[in-house]
Order: sequence, then C-alpha cells, then structure tokens
Amino acid sequence: MSFYNKMTKTELENEKIKLKKKYENFKQMNLKLNMSRGKPSTEQLELSSGMLNNITCDDLSKTEDGFETRNYGMLSGIPEAKKFFANILDVTPDMIIVGENSSLSLMYNCVHIAMQFGILGNKPWKDIENVKFLCPAPGYDRHFAICEIFGIEMISIPMDENGPDMDKVKMLAESDPLVKGIWCVPKYSNPTGITYSDEVVRKFAALKPAAQDFRIFWDNAYVVHHLSKKHDELLNIFDVCKDYGSEDMVLEFTSTSKITFPGGGISAIATSEKNVQSILEIMSIQTICNDKINQLRHCLFFSTSQKLDSHMQAHASIIKPKFDLVLEKLEEKIKPFGIGSWTNPNGGYFISFNSMNGCGKRIGELCKQAGVVLTNVGATYPYGIDPYNRNIRIAPTFPPIKELSIAMDVFCVCVKIASIEKLLREYE
Amino acid sequence: MSFYNKMTKTELENEKIKLKKKYENFKQMNLKLNMSRGKPSTEQLELSSGMLNNITCDDLSKTEDGFETRNYGMLSGIPEAKKFFANILDVTPDMIIVGENSSLSLMYNCVHIAMQFGILGNKPWKDIENVKFLCPAPGYDRHFAICEIFGIEMISIPMDENGPDMDKVKMLAESDPLVKGIWCVPKYSNPTGITYSDEVVRKFAALKPAAQDFRIFWDNAYVVHHLSKKHDELLNIFDVCKDYGSEDMVLEFTSTSKITFPGGGISAIATSEKNVQSILEIMSIQTICNDKINQLRHCLFFSTSQKLDSHMQAHASIIKPKFDLVLEKLEEKIKPFGIGSWTNPNGGYFISFNSMNGCGKRIGELCKQAGVVLTNVGATYPYGIDPYNRNIRIAPTFPPIKELSIAMDVFCVCVKIASIEKLLREYE
Repeated sequence: MSFYNKMTKTELENEKIKLKKKYENFKQMNLKLNMSRGKPSTEQLELSSGMLNNITCDDLSKTEDGFETRNYGMLSGIPEAKKFFANILDVTPDMIIVGENSSLSLMYNCVHIAMQFGILGNKPWKDIENVKFLCPAPGYDRHFAICEIFGIEMISIPMDENGPDMDKVKMLAESDPLVKGIWCVPKYSNPTGITYSDEVVRKFAALKPAAQDFRIFWDNAYVVHHLSKKHDELLNIFDVCKDYGSEDMVLEFTSTSKITFPGGGISAIATSEKNVQSILEIMSIQTICNDKINQLRHCLFFSTSQKLDSHMQAHASIIKPKFDLVLEKLEEKIKPFGIGSWTNPNGGYFISFNSMNGCGKRIGELCKQAGVVLTNVGATYPYGIDPYNRNIRIAPTFPPIKELSIAMDVFCVCVKIASIEKLLREYE
Repeated sequence: MSFYNKMTKTELENEKIKLKKKYENFKQMNLKLNMSRGKPSTEQLELSSGMLNNITCDDLSKTEDGFETRNYGMLSGIPEAKKFFANILDVTPDMIIVGENSSLSLMYNCVHIAMQFGILGNKPWKDIENVKFLCPAPGYDRHFAICEIFGIEMISIPMDENGPDMDKVKMLAESDPLVKGIWCVPKYSNPTGITYSDEVVRKFAALKPAAQDFRIFWDNAYVVHHLSKKHDELLNIFDVCKDYGSEDMVLEFTSTSKITFPGGGISAIATSEKNVQSILEIMSIQTICNDKINQLRHCLFFSTSQKLDSHMQAHASIIKPKFDLVLEKLEEKIKPFGIGSWTNPNGGYFISFNSMNGCGKRIGELCKQAGVVLTNVGATYPYGIDPYNRNIRIAPTFPPIKELSIAMDVFCVCVKIASIEKLLREYE
C-alpha cells in the first residue's frame, strides 16, 4: 500500500478496477443506509423513557413560585426550567427564556425580530439593504438556511482547530456596519467537533462591531454532549463579556433535543437582561406561553445535575463506539492512501471528513448510488458551495453499528474511487 | 324599581348614596378576583389528568405510518394528529398542519410569512405601504395586537348576532387592494359568543377581494366548546369555498388549549393544499419538527370522537353553572334598571356586556379599585378604543363559583354607579 499520489497511472487504473468490483458488489446489496443527519439512535431515545410518565397533577398544580403549570402564563418559562438551563449554560436564571422544543426556531425568531422590528431600537434589518452575516465554515446548514431565506448575505469565515479566524471576524465586524451577526457552534462544533479556544472566546467578547445591533448567535447545542471523560472546556462567553460590557452582543441557544427527545425536548435562549426583556415583549404577542408541562417533566427527570451527567454518560456509551468505528475505518482504509483527513472530536454529533480537493460531490454521488445517504456535500458551507468541494459531514449516531460498519465500508470505497478518478484526470 | 333614565335627579342621587355604601363595603373586603381572561378553571384542568401519563415507548416507536415519534421529522405532524384535527374541523387530513401548543403563534406566523416573504408569490407586505386588516369588533384583543405590532392598519367592522357586517366587509375587501385580511372567530365568537350565520359564511366564501393575497383568518378556537346540548352550527367555510374556487383565501386555526391544557395543548392550521405547501416551505427553515410526543398523547387520549364529545360535556358541566350565575346576576341586578345589555351564548368562553354608552372605562376603574379585574375596557376593539366606551368582556370560567358570585355583585354595583354618574352629569 502506498499513497495514491505516489502511484503510476497503471497502478491507479488497476486499483480502480478492483475498487469498482467491490463497489458493484455493494450496489447489489440494495443498501439503504443513512449517515446524513445528527439524529440520536432508538437506543438513545429509550434512555428518556422515564420522562414520558413522570408527572402528576400535584407536581403541576404548584411550581416553585406557586404557579399553576397547567394553565396559561409564565411566558419566559417556569422557575425550575430557567434554573435547569442556567445550570447547564452557567448563567443566572434571569438570563434565560425557555422556548418550545426547538432552539432553531428561537434562532429564527431572533433573526425575524431583528428583521421586522429591529434590535433594541436599531433600524429593522428589512429596511437596510444588504445585511450580512459571518459564517464560520464548515458550519451548520440550518443556520445558513435562515440567512438564505431572509436574504442575508453570507460571508464564509475559515475555521481551524481553535475556532473561526478571529482576525477576519474582527476586521469584517469592526469595519462594516452591514455585518450584523455571526453563527457559532462554539462547543463540539457542527461539523468539525472542535471547541473554541479561550483566546477565540475572548476575542469574541472583545469585539467592537461597527453595527450596534451586531449579534453573536452562540449555538451551544452540544454543551453537555461529551463522548468520553475527556471533556472539552468552553470559556463562558458572558463572563468575559462583563470585562468589555458586551453582554448584549451575545444570544446563546441550547436545547434538550439530543438529551431527551428530538422534537419533544425544550429549548432556551440565554442573554442579557436587556435582550431578554425586548425578546419577551415580542414573544408576548406571538404566544401566550410555551409548554410548561414539558418543562416541568424535564426538570423532574433531571432533578439533580448528577442525573443529567449520568444520563449524558449513558448517551456517550451508546454513541462512542460508533464514532470509534468510523475513526477505525478511516484509519484503516483511507489513511494509508493519503486521500483524506478528518476530525476526532471529544463530543458532539459529527466527524468532519475532508477528501482531496474536488472530490466531495463525486463521493456523495457514488455513496448515494450505492444506497448510502450522506449530508449533501457542500451543505456545510454558505449557499451549499464548498469552495474546495471536499467537506463531508459524517453523522454516525443514528444507524445501528452493523449498518454503520457497512456504510463506512461503502464510504471508504467511494472516497478511493473518487480520488483515483481525480488523479487519473490529471493524466488526461 | 324603575329604569334609571326614568328617575329624577334626586332619586338618582339617593340611589347613588346607597350604592356607594355597598361599594365601600366591597372595598373593605380586600377582594382579589379576576374575570379578565378566558382561562379554564383548575377543576377543568383535572379533566385531562389522564393525558399526563398515558404514553409508552411502544406507542411512540411507531405511528400509523411507521414513523418514530420520538425522533426528528414529520414537520406537518403525525398522521393521527392530522386526522384528529381534520375530524374536529371537518376537513381532510392533507389540509392540516399541526403546530406547537399555540394557535396564536400559528396566526402570528402566517402574518409574518406574508409580511416577510409574501403569500404564494405576491409582494411581501413589508414592501407595501399601509397594509390594512378588517377587524370585526368587538373582537379578540390578541388578534388586534398582532396587527398593531406589524403596523397593519385596522378597520373596525360592526358585528351583530349573525356575524360581521358583510356589506361593509365586501365593499372594503373588494375595492381596496391594500385590505389584505380579516380576523374572524366564527363560532362562539370572542367576546360576543355568537356564531356566524350560514349567509355570512357564504358571503365570506364568495368574496372577490381586490388583493389576490387577501386572507380570512378563521380562528375557530371554540369549535367544540358548547355550553349545553343546544349547539350552534357553523357552516363549513371550505365546503362553500369550493363553489367559488376560493379555498386559498381561508386560513383556519384551532387548538386544544381549552380542551386539554392551556399552554400544554396542540394546535393546527387547516387550509388549501397550496397554502399548506407554501407554509411548510417556510416552517422547514423555522424548525425541524413540532412536538410529536404531545401530538400522540392527545390522539391516544381522544382515541374516538365520542371521547372528545364526553370530555367537552364534562367541561360544560363545570362552566355552564358559571355562565348561568353571571346571567342570573345581570338579569336580577341590571335588567330592571335598563342600564346594559349582554349576550347569552351557547358556547365559548365569554359573555359580552354593553353598558350605557360612555360608562365602560369607569366601570373597569371602579371594579379594579374594589379588587375585581376585568379585561381592559376597550381591549375588544382595535387600538383598544371602543368608540362607544361600553363593551366589557366577562370571562366567567376561571374563578370558583363563590368568588364569581361576589365578583358579579361588585360588577353590578359598579355598573350601576357608573350609569348614575353618567345620568347625573346630564343635569350639570
């Protein structure tokens, strides 16, 4: 075995013939495998079964402050749920608004509010031509989709193992008043799995954006989603913001979608008191209150932070072997040929794979034809355009381990074929 | 006893002195009574206790179409929940989108979508100056609040026992392309309790609005909320729309907020397939899915329409005596003096009271000072301005019957005092 780029044309051609045979065999298996979305597996869902029937009328009739959970009211959430999220995010409960099941919809709502009504008295973005967002990439496709639907121009920011390129972020945010925001997944980032370094977090807090209504969308989706005992530590951005008086600049989001039930969880915003007030003002027109019964369900289930910890360890013990399997397959089947690089995260839901430049879409195509669905290649970049056409987000959590193993075998063969095709094109 | 307007000045002054004494006695009781919002009572909440712990993992792992309810997906709702709402609203399941807990937030979202993105390819309302909505009044304050926050001009439409003044609706909607919508609570209307007549519904379906993107916001909040066996029947607007090809014009909303738990229920939009598709397109950016576990909980609890019927009868048996009490008090204490008129609804959550013109705010003030909170007087009209200053929405469901009785005694004294004050002013 040797690196493909050291092989002669004939060696490559022979290798390709062998691989094509394997590939055809896979095709004949009529596989239907999916590594596209960050979905918990059924086994993980069972971990939260105890939450389905854990509530009585007595629990509900009185929350901590004596409020009837089953009736209208408490727009910002029940006290227990605010404390729950405050503990997770290491902020104070008065910084929390508890949402419905989806942190994505909270993010959408914050963009909508800025668009339609403006942030804290600033001009509504709808009345400004060419609002721009910074988009560290590869990143989360659903963030980019929000920008796209609102017509917000997206500017890609390169990512490395410490987070976004902060020189570029600073330069753009501080010089251009049309730059109104940035999307971040600061811990176990989607898809690279890295956690922003302390220095990066400090540089965020220290930003002096040209736009007064610049907002950091700090999507802390994977805050407690460790894969092993080796946890990444993310600096608390609000703590650092205090030094700069920049607390209003940060909107932090999280949810229990991958703690309890995707779609059946609860979500939260954490932000400055001033932002909390102004968001609640609009929310009071949007709804009467969120689902407080589900809030209390969660708080009863996670009555102590130890319970949450052990619950997340149980998740990890199910999904860590899947991450390990993906990494082993890549080590074994890709590494010897020098045709890709990938991340080895301590948490989160993804492994980010970079093929040789220009091979991404072809790999996705080959996988699809063999019945293995990957996240759309390119989706991890604004407008779905990966400038290097190489980044593939692998989501190992959902498939059973046997299926994942086959899916990875298919994937590796596809990577190899696409790489050889590319190298052979260079002879043309 | 005689009508106040037949009394001499001296008689009125003597009457006022007696009433003021009663009023002062009430004040000394330090009452804290609330008839302001349409909230179910605690007793009503208990009716749905069986829904809190009625679900197992087995139920959840497979919905009708084999989908895993506990995981992401099924943006428009699980098939069971679509059928549930389709039955209630007498439409087909493909016309249904199941939302989160709040139909209000679905309505807000539809206005937002029209504002930001435009309806079915029409110009976004944000790019049109002076968008207008028709607002049958008295109506629901939270509808008006949505218009107000979006800067939509509200035009009041008079209501009578058959619904809105359809000549006026037709004239305005068909002549002015800036008129983009109308708010309706067509059954057991908020606050008047009336149900739109067949003729009114037919006239709605037959509208040929000047604006292609004119939408009827058909808030069928009280569709199954009968007070006795004497049900009002609302003509199915979609059936009539078929005759005119006007199905796209109607957005119907409902929720289980006052069936199961306010804030812990589920909600739905019913509309044409074309509207469903275009709303889902935006919703797919706003969220990954709604809370399907709560959807299934509801569907298991109301596994047959008989169960829903008897559940609603149980609600009625709790709240009907409260409505009766309010009506008795008004008959006894107000009617003999000719100082007010009110509705006697067959369902819904409100009794709408009209004082003598010009007395509404004073009644609210007097009640408040005596510890009885009413819906803000004026709130039932656009911009909170009741042109006659007379309409008061009485919400009898929440207080225990003893408290309601005292609250109504206070209310009646306040109505009398305010009426006499008005009549005495005429002597000045």
